[in-house]
Amino acid sequence: MYLSSVSVMGSDDDIKAPGRGRGSGILPIMVPEHDSEALPAGAAERARLIALDWGSSSLRGWLLDANGEVLDRREAPLGILNVREGRFAEAFRAFCALWLAIRPDLPAIASGMIGSRQGWREAPYVATPAGFDALASGLLDLGDEAGRPFRIVPGLVTRPPGGSPDVIRGEETQVFGAIGTGASGTALFLLPGTHSKWVATRDAVVTGFRTCMTGELYAVMRQHSILGRLCEEPESPDAPGPLSAFDDGVRRGLAEPGALGHLLFTVRSEGLLGQRPPDHLPGYLSGLLIGAEIGDALRAFSPRQAPCVIAAPALAARYLRALHLAGIEATAAQGEPARDGLYAIAAHAGLVA
Amino acid sequence: MYLSSVSVMGSDDDIKAPGRGRGSGILPIMVPEHDSEALPAGAAERARLIALDWGSSSLRGWLLDANGEVLDRREAPLGILNVREGRFAEAFRAFCALWLAIRPDLPAIASGMIGSRQGWREAPYVATPAGFDALASGLLDLGDEAGRPFRIVPGLVTRPPGGSPDVIRGEETQVFGAIGTGASGTALFLLPGTHSKWVATRDAVVTGFRTCMTGELYAVMRQHSILGRLCEEPESPDAPGPLSAFDDGVRRGLAEPGALGHLLFTVRSEGLLGQRPPDHLPGYLSGLLIGAEIGDALRAFSPRQAPCVIAAPALAARYLRALHLAGIEATAAQGEPARDGLYAIAAHAGLVA
Repeated sequence: MYLSSVSVMGSDDDIKAPGRGRGSGILPIMVPEHDSEALPAGAAERARLIALDWGSSSLRGWLLDANGEVLDRREAPLGILNVREGRFAEAFRAFCALWLAIRPDLPAIASGMIGSRQGWREAPYVATPAGFDALASGLLDLGDEAGRPFRIVPGLVTRPPGGSPDVIRGEETQVFGAIGTGASGTALFLLPGTHSKWVATRDAVVTGFRTCMTGELYAVMRQHSILGRLCEEPESPDAPGPLSAFDDGVRRGLAEPGALGHLLFTVRSEGLLGQRPPDHLPGYLSGLLIGAEIGDALRAFSPRQAPCVIAAPALAARYLRALHLAGIEATAAQGEPARDGLYAIAAHAGLVA
Repeated sequence: MYLSSVSVMGSDDDIKAPGRGRGSGILPIMVPEHDSEALPAGAAERARLIALDWGSSSLRGWLLDANGEVLDRREAPLGILNVREGRFAEAFRAFCALWLAIRPDLPAIASGMIGSRQGWREAPYVATPAGFDALASGLLDLGDEAGRPFRIVPGLVTRPPGGSPDVIRGEETQVFGAIGTGASGTALFLLPGTHSKWVATRDAVVTGFRTCMTGELYAVMRQHSILGRLCEEPESPDAPGPLSAFDDGVRRGLAEPGALGHLLFTVRSEGLLGQRPPDHLPGYLSGLLIGAEIGDALRAFSPRQAPCVIAAPALAARYLRALHLAGIEATAAQGEPARDGLYAIAAHAGLVA
């Protein structure tokens, strides 16, 4: 709930494996049982593509037909930080064993941290503006390493004039999945999380984006700063009290731009002086950070366009609530944007025969 | 250097002792040898007051005469987090053993975290506006616990209209030491550190203050966030490169209010893409946070008054440099404001006979 369940690991490059990872001994790649009964009749004939959303902590995969219809899906905690000693080929074969057994020739496409410096192989960033063509051209081909056609979607780099460069890896695929290939006009996408990404598009081309460290700030301040000492997790973050505290935080984060370093301290002073009960403080902290993030993004991406929020339902609901307080009625993306994006990019690259 | 040497422990209330503290066994209070040769001739006759700046991590003390002249001084890592099981009386007697040996009747006054909930005894906050009278009236008398008159300076609480309450404990004494009893007109004081305090006064009365978590944000992001992974400590933070990176950070923090969550991420993206070398990143991060703090304080405390900076020389120099970039030529407090404040408050309370 709030952002506390979001991993501190970033979704950007150059992540180091944690202590329990590399170098702690060779262990078998553990993959949950795959139920062959789950495959629909004719799956072997219809299957055309393995699509993988391969991030830092988890791996989600879909077996798709020529139209992008889902024949099978699975998920495992096989994120790149949990794959030891670069054994990605082995992890891939174990995860997709059933699919590869029925169709040894299937091509695969993967997005996310698997293409980072710490992943299977680095897929260099493609610069914005970038649409389907640029992403398809930038696909990294693993050659023989995976024993079949295996492409990795590149991340994107943007270089706003007068600002710092910014990067995304994996989110671009979700945006393309949410937007669809034929989109026209401008749109704004928000992918909240450890590192929230605001992505602007025009005519199905990513024109720019902006990262805000909201989720990591929350986790780090909650776990490692003095703020965490007065906080107690609420029994339900959706109870009226905690929700009201969240709203208070959002309003202050929106209303006092530039004051975040001070506002964070008010979590402490309000707790210390009994102005706010301990189990309201996590929601208030989360609200402050999300309010500040939204305020900043609205200034950066004027005119004030309602973003499409791409996130798990609970986190999306939290951001929709905060955006409402900012006067913006946003919508949440439906379906599985990562899967849709992977299929669309693969089809664009001629990978789906 | 920068803020990295500042403890993560706050200078506010409700600090819990670290693992190595309470409950880890009864150990003797370790106090460095006190050189009796260091006392000037006639010290026993002239001594009138023991003044103690007793914080979270360290304890500084002065033996003063009737005019506030220093007869002796000492310092030890006897902050309240390092005093086990509430053995503050023992720590006091050990730290001041020589002074108490030559003058068993000396009164004492202490400021800082010793008056917090986790200290010797809690000295309730005094509300702003608060001058010497209010502080003197709010002194906590330990009674017989210290075996002699022993007063603890209360902290201050401020309740700005429409904002959250804010607290200081210890900094008020330094401000009164820097300002002097007869000050007139308005002044602004800046006490940077783990929790930076901006304190406004008028006619030697504290009218309000504002805390910014700059130092703790730096330490926590440096040590526990993804930002720290690309950072390398520079050989010298005052070398041209690191200084220039610090200046860049200050300028951006000042120029982009409300963007801190995004600007923090630029430490990562600039490092990742090779725009800034690893040993320039800590200074850039420090600059971003200090620039954002100064920008916020200048908006909160208009008109733009040059603050008097109360800090150790290296940290004061860093803030004076950042303030200069903000167009403000500030000054650093001279001498030992904590000592001067303790003496002035004690004199005001009639504690110096």
